[in-house]
Amino acid sequence: MKFGGTSMAGTERIRRVANIVRRQQEAGHEVAVVVSAMAGETDRLVGFAREANPLYDPAEYDVVVASGEQVTSGLLAMTLQAMGCKARSWLGWQLPIRTDNAHAKARIETIDSQAVLASMASGEIAVIPGFQGMGHDGRVTTLGRGGSDTSAVAVAAAVKADRCDIYTDVDGVYTTDPRIVAKARKLKHVTYEEMLELASVGSKVLQTRSVSLAMKEGVRVQVLSSFIDDDAPLADEIPGTMIVSDEELAKEMENLEMESQLITGIAADKNEAKVTLTRIADRPGAVAAIFGPLAQANINVDMIIQNIAKDKGETDVTFTVPAADLDRTMALLEERKDAIGFYRLISDSKVSKISVVGVGMRSHAGIAATMFRTLAERGINIQAISTSEIKVSVLIDADETELAVRVLHTAYGLDSQG
Amino acid sequence: MKFGGTSMAGTERIRRVANIVRRQQEAGHEVAVVVSAMAGETDRLVGFAREANPLYDPAEYDVVVASGEQVTSGLLAMTLQAMGCKARSWLGWQLPIRTDNAHAKARIETIDSQAVLASMASGEIAVIPGFQGMGHDGRVTTLGRGGSDTSAVAVAAAVKADRCDIYTDVDGVYTTDPRIVAKARKLKHVTYEEMLELASVGSKVLQTRSVSLAMKEGVRVQVLSSFIDDDAPLADEIPGTMIVSDEELAKEMENLEMESQLITGIAADKNEAKVTLTRIADRPGAVAAIFGPLAQANINVDMIIQNIAKDKGETDVTFTVPAADLDRTMALLEERKDAIGFYRLISDSKVSKISVVGVGMRSHAGIAATMFRTLAERGINIQAISTSEIKVSVLIDADETELAVRVLHTAYGLDSQG
Repeated sequence: MKFGGTSMAGTERIRRVANIVRRQQEAGHEVAVVVSAMAGETDRLVGFAREANPLYDPAEYDVVVASGEQVTSGLLAMTLQAMGCKARSWLGWQLPIRTDNAHAKARIETIDSQAVLASMASGEIAVIPGFQGMGHDGRVTTLGRGGSDTSAVAVAAAVKADRCDIYTDVDGVYTTDPRIVAKARKLKHVTYEEMLELASVGSKVLQTRSVSLAMKEGVRVQVLSSFIDDDAPLADEIPGTMIVSDEELAKEMENLEMESQLITGIAADKNEAKVTLTRIADRPGAVAAIFGPLAQANINVDMIIQNIAKDKGETDVTFTVPAADLDRTMALLEERKDAIGFYRLISDSKVSKISVVGVGMRSHAGIAATMFRTLAERGINIQAISTSEIKVSVLIDADETELAVRVLHTAYGLDSQG
Repeated sequence: MKFGGTSMAGTERIRRVANIVRRQQEAGHEVAVVVSAMAGETDRLVGFAREANPLYDPAEYDVVVASGEQVTSGLLAMTLQAMGCKARSWLGWQLPIRTDNAHAKARIETIDSQAVLASMASGEIAVIPGFQGMGHDGRVTTLGRGGSDTSAVAVAAAVKADRCDIYTDVDGVYTTDPRIVAKARKLKHVTYEEMLELASVGSKVLQTRSVSLAMKEGVRVQVLSSFIDDDAPLADEIPGTMIVSDEELAKEMENLEMESQLITGIAADKNEAKVTLTRIADRPGAVAAIFGPLAQANINVDMIIQNIAKDKGETDVTFTVPAADLDRTMALLEERKDAIGFYRLISDSKVSKISVVGVGMRSHAGIAATMFRTLAERGINIQAISTSEIKVSVLIDADETELAVRVLHTAYGLDSQG
């Protein structure tokens, strides 16, 4: 079980979390719990670190910011004890959760689960701070913001958990953002790959790394709401969304005698910006001259469209970058204007990427056609297109985001009947 | 060097601390620094723990409250780095500082100084969180409130430091509280035993345990102020009060050609309460029936006076306990009224203990007589007396505390000439 910062914000909320945990144990489960810091605490600690030294040593940064989860893990263990449960905290260095030495953005390598498994087998609930580990240097490491989801999946893999329940602000994964489409449906199941595509295009339910890790380790992850009453049904009875493998999904679909759905969900992402370079010489190496420097600067380029070469051996190149990196991107390209050899550099941060996602689309070529036709009927102009095996994405004007999501949700038959 | 919570309260104060540390290093010293949590932080964390579980598991309490010093040690290391110094933090479990398993009131057993000495020899400043260690159980322990002074002395002993400078809210140890007696003088030297007596009777400069440890390990401790300007003279140049052995004191006295002072200081403590049981049967075991249960309940009895047996084989017994333990003491004794066999149980929390302290008094019987005469001349009634080799204490009415301290300070010739 994993609980985020909102669920851990203060002793009264921790008591509610403890109650959910206690009821799972009473239902017969051996339980390990991974916790985030209290909401706002990590920001407070990062603020101290920045004030102390704007160019901080990431090893010392980790010492400071890992303390937030240390506090909540101790408090949750105490609260469980107050309810009569056996419980103890296991800090990152105690298990240990071994990571590489990349302080402030470490990756988990191994988790020694022997001691914690013995403790759990004796009826003790294990409470583990998320986000933290111990590097090869024997020092505290942290996994980067949002790393607690990854901690939870890694612990679930290490203890060979039947399930990794991630309690969040939402009660599951929806076919699209319910704030945009009132008829959005909660999904019972979604595959790892679908979840990755949905996460990478703006569905902020889970950290992408945690989903990749769950896929690699075969951990069954369930997303569900932590805002439930003390006497609400348990997670086993009222499930959220289960994230599973293709094979398990196929089996579940059979069990439930459900019709296979071609499209699982529709995601919108307004955090991209579009960059166009016009009249680039259509010669070998021209494109490399653009994207090489961006890669070196760690700027993540997403969609790339090169228009058909025009007369005079010239071409236009359009691509998208995270909106936060737009200024750096423009500066880098302007610096290299002569080396690249373009005529004009144009940017637009008022764009939105709309994606339809579903494992069912692999064998259905018509998915993309439906998307383009549906948008065209509403007069929504498509500025760029990219596709993967289980996703079709288009770039449109940001003002048309909500309209596009709504019409596509209906077009693919996702609207709930209720 | 050790800095308390007031000195560490916020990044701007930590910058001032870092500057003091940096200047010591530049003066040619290898430096280890022990830090407290930011002022108020430990109270905040203890508050969380109490809310989570009033009967908290001390092992989990330690996990929660040790985080405050973890944060400040990381921040000070970062701040030193920002000033161009090499520095790193060493958490309690990293050195490790090994303690017993008495969570929330652990005692330091050993400190492995090998790694930290190698680091210091390479020019790196060691920053060590106070108050915390690691028990035999491999878990986080804390030393009890104010334990950072003890951490500092233990680290100083482990690295064989020339000196342990403890930076506090005050600039040294005075002949008495300067808020009571304007003519109080700062002492250049005080012996461990004198400091213990002064500390145990209300001079809150250092935690008693830290002084005992310094005496046992022969650590030269200096108390000085952390409220100094960035360009003020260094601790070596403008010293605070040095706490040393009898032998060193004698040597220093000779060097300085100072007259030996019979009395070092006068301390007042208003945190005691007086309890009297009247008409107890004057038989073997009667006194044990009183103090046995108090000892079991961990209530620290200080002065004990048994009046001369009266007629009818009855006697009165008076003793003092910490004012905070008075209610528990009264309840315990009331419960045992029949077993003890007393007539009335009387308490008075409006008392004050005044002590005159000095290694010089060992061979001077007149010290106590001077004290009693001086108080009598001012009409101050002595309710109880206790003596040790280097201390005479009397219990008086709390309202007369300031008057008693002032007249004794003058009577023993302690008033400054300035």
